[in-house]
Amino acid sequence: MRIAVAQLNSHIGNFEGNVQRILEAVAEARAQGAELIVFPELSVCGYPPRDFLEFDDFIRQVNDALAQLAAVTQGFAILVGAPTRNPLPEGKDLFNSAYFLADGQVRHIRHKALLPTYDIFDEYRYFEPSHHFEIIEFRGKRLAVTICEDLWNVGNENPLYTVCPMDEMMAQQPDLMVNLSASPFSYDHAEDRMHVLRTNVLRYNLPLFYCNQVGAQTEVIFDGGSVIMSPNGRVYDEMPYFEECIRTYELDEVLAGARDNEQPRHKMALIHDALLLGLRDYFGKLNLKKAIVGLSGGIDSAVVTVLAARALGPDNVRVLLMPSQYSSEHSIADARALAENLGLQYDILPLQSVYESYLNLLEPHFEGLPFNITEENIQARIRGMLLMAFSNKFGHILLNTSNKSEMAVGYGTLYGDMCGGLSVIGDVYKTEIYELAEYINKDAEVIPVNTITKPPSAELRPGQKDSDSLPPYDQLDQVLFQYIEQRQGPRELIAMGFDETLVRRTLRLVNINEFKRHQTAPVLRVSDKAFGVGRRMPIVVKYLS
Amino acid sequence: MRIAVAQLNSHIGNFEGNVQRILEAVAEARAQGAELIVFPELSVCGYPPRDFLEFDDFIRQVNDALAQLAAVTQGFAILVGAPTRNPLPEGKDLFNSAYFLADGQVRHIRHKALLPTYDIFDEYRYFEPSHHFEIIEFRGKRLAVTICEDLWNVGNENPLYTVCPMDEMMAQQPDLMVNLSASPFSYDHAEDRMHVLRTNVLRYNLPLFYCNQVGAQTEVIFDGGSVIMSPNGRVYDEMPYFEECIRTYELDEVLAGARDNEQPRHKMALIHDALLLGLRDYFGKLNLKKAIVGLSGGIDSAVVTVLAARALGPDNVRVLLMPSQYSSEHSIADARALAENLGLQYDILPLQSVYESYLNLLEPHFEGLPFNITEENIQARIRGMLLMAFSNKFGHILLNTSNKSEMAVGYGTLYGDMCGGLSVIGDVYKTEIYELAEYINKDAEVIPVNTITKPPSAELRPGQKDSDSLPPYDQLDQVLFQYIEQRQGPRELIAMGFDETLVRRTLRLVNINEFKRHQTAPVLRVSDKAFGVGRRMPIVVKYLS
Repeated sequence: MRIAVAQLNSHIGNFEGNVQRILEAVAEARAQGAELIVFPELSVCGYPPRDFLEFDDFIRQVNDALAQLAAVTQGFAILVGAPTRNPLPEGKDLFNSAYFLADGQVRHIRHKALLPTYDIFDEYRYFEPSHHFEIIEFRGKRLAVTICEDLWNVGNENPLYTVCPMDEMMAQQPDLMVNLSASPFSYDHAEDRMHVLRTNVLRYNLPLFYCNQVGAQTEVIFDGGSVIMSPNGRVYDEMPYFEECIRTYELDEVLAGARDNEQPRHKMALIHDALLLGLRDYFGKLNLKKAIVGLSGGIDSAVVTVLAARALGPDNVRVLLMPSQYSSEHSIADARALAENLGLQYDILPLQSVYESYLNLLEPHFEGLPFNITEENIQARIRGMLLMAFSNKFGHILLNTSNKSEMAVGYGTLYGDMCGGLSVIGDVYKTEIYELAEYINKDAEVIPVNTITKPPSAELRPGQKDSDSLPPYDQLDQVLFQYIEQRQGPRELIAMGFDETLVRRTLRLVNINEFKRHQTAPVLRVSDKAFGVGRRMPIVVKYLS
Repeated sequence: MRIAVAQLNSHIGNFEGNVQRILEAVAEARAQGAELIVFPELSVCGYPPRDFLEFDDFIRQVNDALAQLAAVTQGFAILVGAPTRNPLPEGKDLFNSAYFLADGQVRHIRHKALLPTYDIFDEYRYFEPSHHFEIIEFRGKRLAVTICEDLWNVGNENPLYTVCPMDEMMAQQPDLMVNLSASPFSYDHAEDRMHVLRTNVLRYNLPLFYCNQVGAQTEVIFDGGSVIMSPNGRVYDEMPYFEECIRTYELDEVLAGARDNEQPRHKMALIHDALLLGLRDYFGKLNLKKAIVGLSGGIDSAVVTVLAARALGPDNVRVLLMPSQYSSEHSIADARALAENLGLQYDILPLQSVYESYLNLLEPHFEGLPFNITEENIQARIRGMLLMAFSNKFGHILLNTSNKSEMAVGYGTLYGDMCGGLSVIGDVYKTEIYELAEYINKDAEVIPVNTITKPPSAELRPGQKDSDSLPPYDQLDQVLFQYIEQRQGPRELIAMGFDETLVRRTLRLVNINEFKRHQTAPVLRVSDKAFGVGRRMPIVVKYLS
């Protein structure tokens, strides 16, 4: 039997576009000689559709799309993910399902049993878990069909769940496993995923066809990397990360297990490529083309600008250099050098005149009060406003350049440098930004070396350095990682050997700055715990603060 | 038996403060002759603690707090809500529990069975549901203890759940029902709640002691209104809305059912009082005092300013009048009249000079391009920046004045009039703002009548009116209500008789402006479906757009 796996990039709610792309994939798979094609989880509507699932109209459009797909399955079969109405009055209104379409009809529907409800996942908000497990027969083969998380409780070892769908289906003697996934990227997730898939394959001694969604859905990036695994645990094929792919496999060859096609994984390459996809899909799916970035001469805006130029093309990226009286000469020079390296349109708009007009207007009200963070923020906000003025006038979308360390401790100006429609590096710690810059420069000096080597500064008052206000980034980032990603508290952190003052100060800063993060753009997620939808904190609290 | 009900306002994560307030309530209840005191759901840590529940340190502090509370229960009993570790490896790590503390010890722990996971609720993200139901015996009485949602599946009629905890406990012949709740306010929820409670009471023929949390937790407002109901379905007592309350009841008198103390409910009075509490708790719990508002002369900022003055006191509210060249004379006059009516400090800062400095700086780049939304937004953003400058210099928190209609259709400037730390009226439609203004003016003309009667305008270009850009608010708000609160789609709306063009335009505007709402302040929730945590939509979509 020849089985195609179609790792597609769906567009949430774009039923016409998704159906068209699925039909193209079907045609391609048929041309490749496939008899069955497998698509990702919820690929008819895109994953995650969130509260659109609560609209009858949305589900009606899902059903119309499925009817269109069923119509093309004469002598062929499609296995595709879509929500289904729960016909029983008990439980949630929907199932998260796999539709088996063949010979012009809906032949089988199988529902997801294990519903992730943690981090970015809200599946139990919408879906009823399945308690019914049955294999699907097709042309003499017995398919054990599961959906994403269903494979993540191998032998019931995951404490979150009390059933193991594959264990349940083994009595029906399946010939192969097929999984429809929407498994999001983080820089170490592909490795975990491979481990889980191999554990399944070795436990059941069955080949696996694992089809994962690719593409960014607002902040959540899906990396693809679909896996075809032989019963001996070898990776018969692993599809590329971060791009669509449709390939057809001969089941007997997969069973034979003579190939090993696992791809290498390097953290910075993965993050780099993930962010490019995140940018491309944010723009492409919103039918936007052009981006604008405020270029300071520092490393954060430099990295964002390179990523934007690579993702959208240099013709679609415009930068503004907005020196204030506190900007150093090298900042302008470094920013200009980067823009020229990339071939970007750049303009220089000195802030001084606007800054003075604010000071003049405010002077009678601020009389006698010293320069403080107010005046620093005014400069940062003028930059935000100028960028938004260009955005409004020419249709460029402003990219936010805050890194994860800054966002964590609130080192940024709301409505100033925290402006922007998309946070590109808000899930990348400052120390990782340096690694990313080195990775970007691996073949040539794209980012001026001076931008990388000089001490970070906001340049909002004379001689300012980040280190005046913050602990050194190498220490800060370690504490942040332990607190945010690993959920360690003060006691655990101090026991690890971190300085108590550093720990208490850092955790307090993270907690009291939740209000700022609440108002920032969606953050492209590359780690296990990004700010935004996967980390839900109340603002009005008094805890470690 | 004498039972006290303590409707307290907890502070999330403030264990010291919460324990102290609980101890005060215990002392007061003892003075009232109580033998047992009941507190709300999760009142040791505050509800909802969200992802802080994932930190061991947080749970450790809960346990320390419980030990302190147990220590004061010699000859007395406390029933209080707190999370508990799930001792089994299977399932989520925690239960949402009721602790029965007596004679210095933890005597009983009961867990919540029905875990709301919809709208603002994420309980299944954290908690394992209980499958075990057992009454608690205390001084010869048998208490059927449930937690909030546990009472919302009367006789298993709620399709979301498959068990009815009270049905399960009836075989154990309880003498009374006790419920610990954190049931959030919306303007029609207290009525639903009373209906559900009465249905329980009449079904089981038992008295009910229902203790609800009061107080705002960031955007979610809990209204209190705890209910003591006699087995005949009469409201023996209903505690006040929006304030703490500790009262003790003689069980025999509640059983007799001779009193009826249900309080009246008027939509605008409830919304008004809820917003005052929302403001007070946002400021009070963050240890903030002072607010600032940009006063335009229009109705939205007028209503917000009155609410702020009433919640925080006029001495703590400062307003800025920031006329542009397009502002009408009456705008300044109306704004000034309001500030004077309320006795507020106000300053007038004309935008012209700063606006011109921006235009001069941008002129070489915008040469030959016509005035458009860019210049309108610059004016709105200068106002936002001036307000933030005062905020930074003097410590006033900026209140956002966008209403729900504007937020829905994106009629507002990001980083301009959409600035602010808290959205006060973002869950109140424009047509409801008028009702609220009338309610505010019921005893005296606080808001100038001209502010209420003139046609709404952003005054960002000559002669501008909201009606140039938007459908009439009475039509718009009806469509928005049906789409947002009632989740009706285009087909249903058109079938209701709404004009198809109006429907398609409105739904499109709502969906394409998700990116703006993503960056706004938390919105005080007064309806069944507010923007923010209870309505989760992806930004990058193509659906009805």
